Amino acid sequence: MAPDLDDIRAARDVIADVVKRTPVISSLTLSGDIGGNVVLKAENLQRTGSFKIRGATNKVASLGDVAVRGVTTGSAGNHAQALAFAAQHFGVPCEIFVPVGAAITKIDACRALGATVVEHGAALAEAVAAAKERANATGMTFCAPFDDPSVVAGQGTLGLEVIEDIDDLACVIVPLGGGGLISGAAIAVKSMRPDVRVIGVQAAVCAPYAGGTPADGPVLTLADGIAVKYPGELTGPLVERWVDDVVTVDEDAIADAMVLLMDRAKLYVEGAGAVGVAALLSSAVRPSPNGSTCVVLSGGNVDLGVVPSLIRRHENSSGRRLSVVARIDDRPGSLAHLLAVFADGGADLIEVQHVREGLELHVRETGIHATFAVRSIDQATALIVAARSAGYEIRPSTW
Amino acid sequence: MAPDLDDIRAARDVIADVVKRTPVISSLTLSGDIGGNVVLKAENLQRTGSFKIRGATNKVASLGDVAVRGVTTGSAGNHAQALAFAAQHFGVPCEIFVPVGAAITKIDACRALGATVVEHGAALAEAVAAAKERANATGMTFCAPFDDPSVVAGQGTLGLEVIEDIDDLACVIVPLGGGGLISGAAIAVKSMRPDVRVIGVQAAVCAPYAGGTPADGPVLTLADGIAVKYPGELTGPLVERWVDDVVTVDEDAIADAMVLLMDRAKLYVEGAGAVGVAALLSSAVRPSPNGSTCVVLSGGNVDLGVVPSLIRRHENSSGRRLSVVARIDDRPGSLAHLLAVFADGGADLIEVQHVREGLELHVRETGIHATFAVRSIDQATALIVAARSAGYEIRPSTW
Repeated sequence: MAPDLDDIRAARDVIADVVKRTPVISSLTLSGDIGGNVVLKAENLQRTGSFKIRGATNKVASLGDVAVRGVTTGSAGNHAQALAFAAQHFGVPCEIFVPVGAAITKIDACRALGATVVEHGAALAEAVAAAKERANATGMTFCAPFDDPSVVAGQGTLGLEVIEDIDDLACVIVPLGGGGLISGAAIAVKSMRPDVRVIGVQAAVCAPYAGGTPADGPVLTLADGIAVKYPGELTGPLVERWVDDVVTVDEDAIADAMVLLMDRAKLYVEGAGAVGVAALLSSAVRPSPNGSTCVVLSGGNVDLGVVPSLIRRHENSSGRRLSVVARIDDRPGSLAHLLAVFADGGADLIEVQHVREGLELHVRETGIHATFAVRSIDQATALIVAARSAGYEIRPSTW
Repeated sequence: MAPDLDDIRAARDVIADVVKRTPVISSLTLSGDIGGNVVLKAENLQRTGSFKIRGATNKVASLGDVAVRGVTTGSAGNHAQALAFAAQHFGVPCEIFVPVGAAITKIDACRALGATVVEHGAALAEAVAAAKERANATGMTFCAPFDDPSVVAGQGTLGLEVIEDIDDLACVIVPLGGGGLISGAAIAVKSMRPDVRVIGVQAAVCAPYAGGTPADGPVLTLADGIAVKYPGELTGPLVERWVDDVVTVDEDAIADAMVLLMDRAKLYVEGAGAVGVAALLSSAVRPSPNGSTCVVLSGGNVDLGVVPSLIRRHENSSGRRLSVVARIDDRPGSLAHLLAVFADGGADLIEVQHVREGLELHVRETGIHATFAVRSIDQATALIVAARSAGYEIRPSTW
């Protein structure tokens, strides 16, 4: 059942017309931040925004005549878009089952690719069950997101590309959810170059391959694309056999990695796609001392609405932004004088609000919540000191 | 004085060790939005985050023995980082003059590359003058950002790459500020393929090449990287001779293009780098009906702080976010009831505030400013209708 290098090479020929060979991008600044020679496999630039198109295309192609009856799956994520794209390419019907209330952007993306989207059930499991029922009732083929040899072989084509495109490849770091991408890539890489290390990265809140016990209920993580609670029947043993190590990263590291990838590498990468960089930043993985460490950026389908929060968080933690809570006398000029202290210290006011509830205030006092753009943590600290020297009771609200 | 194709080819050899050959990326979704086959020259992925490294490296290399005395310039932007990088590569001293209060991120980037950064003067012109004085006094070479044949030849190497990498190239769209990039690229492209159209794009608020008269004082634009008020002595006539057409785009189109590039193409592109996509989106340029239209994304050095505002703006205009101002009775349950109307309509509450000033309110009334996440403009409209049917005086605050 498990695919081998020949299957992966065959998959490459099958999917060549659909799948891009995504660029490998070197980043001096990122390498400098991390230490070691780090290169990025920019699979976020792949068609449909993720590697999933590789496996989905190989799967649909493998169906032969059965494909005309159509394909279906339960997914609200990258697999859904990938399957819709592959089905459209081969001209076969596609039905995608998503939980009620799934992100409209994902639904729109599938519909734009010609798929029928059915909202069903409160959780993903119910949508998956509905897709399987639909397949049984109609003769459509249910296409699993990772636990399928054709899918694993398709994802493995990424492994061929990194071997061929990076001369001094020493280590490949791969996001690990269900395990389809990493097992395919590891089979390709290790079969050709057993000396190259392959490391999987999971989100700490959902890390079954790293020995974590999944919590009940929905998982809250920036890396929702890899929030899979149990190893696959096929992929579990493959990861066991082919992958050198599995590590985990926390949500702060993922958030830092996403912002760093935007700011330094100019790439827009989803949380699941950024865990490899997060692992390097948090020293969960050390880059190879000799040769290149390749980080697979597996996808770029970020909900735009998440980005402002990520950037605000980064601005606070990196000393670009300072929020304070202060207590001032309820007298003319009190706020003006406080703001003048900050202006003299070179801070640009972004926002100021009076806070009259929730603080223990004298009736002649007022609370102030103010946010400034600043240039460094040192400057922020100096501003607090200056305001205290000027007689204000003040504290940063975000440290 | 003006460089020709041979100079550009020679520049390519000179800069080969420093400059990346950036990828050309096809985007089906972007092509679908725009119509025609659109490909992106992702020069935002270039070293130092912009094309400027091409010209700066060729310039420093051209100095020969004089280079050891050092190089200097006045710039708070991409040229400064590029010159610092090139100087570091060749092991020569570099001094960058920036206006007082220049963005700390840019200053830090230059310092990280080994340059000395001097803050001088209130405006860029004063920093430039100081750099020239410094050059006269010390024997350092003042390196102009665009009006220099070695710089133009260096930038022209991008033209060689698009010709070679895009088989069916029909049109190249290039951001136009000082004119260094577009004149170099146009000389390369037109010398090899006179049939390929080369179009320049300027920000409407600063468009001297499109016949605009520059306003006095600082220019406020998202495309600050191309906010150059006068054509260069060298580049002005080159643009006149080699470029087919120059168009302009407004700030809304630039903002839309930046968000679209993130959301669809997964690329982080600065305002000046996004004007080509803005020109296509706003129909200032039509894509070629046959063959590929290449849009040069000239740089990716966005100030992170700008991005949240861009995304908020996009969410409002695309129906993902609805802000309303409403008037409610000052009675228990009034706000709860209003919010229930929105919840029933499927809107997720993001933020709610009482507004008691600035509205003409009865003493028993309160103003409410509320923001919701919604799924479409249709849903937003239906929510307003439902709230009015329920008896509320309410209006969108952002339409």
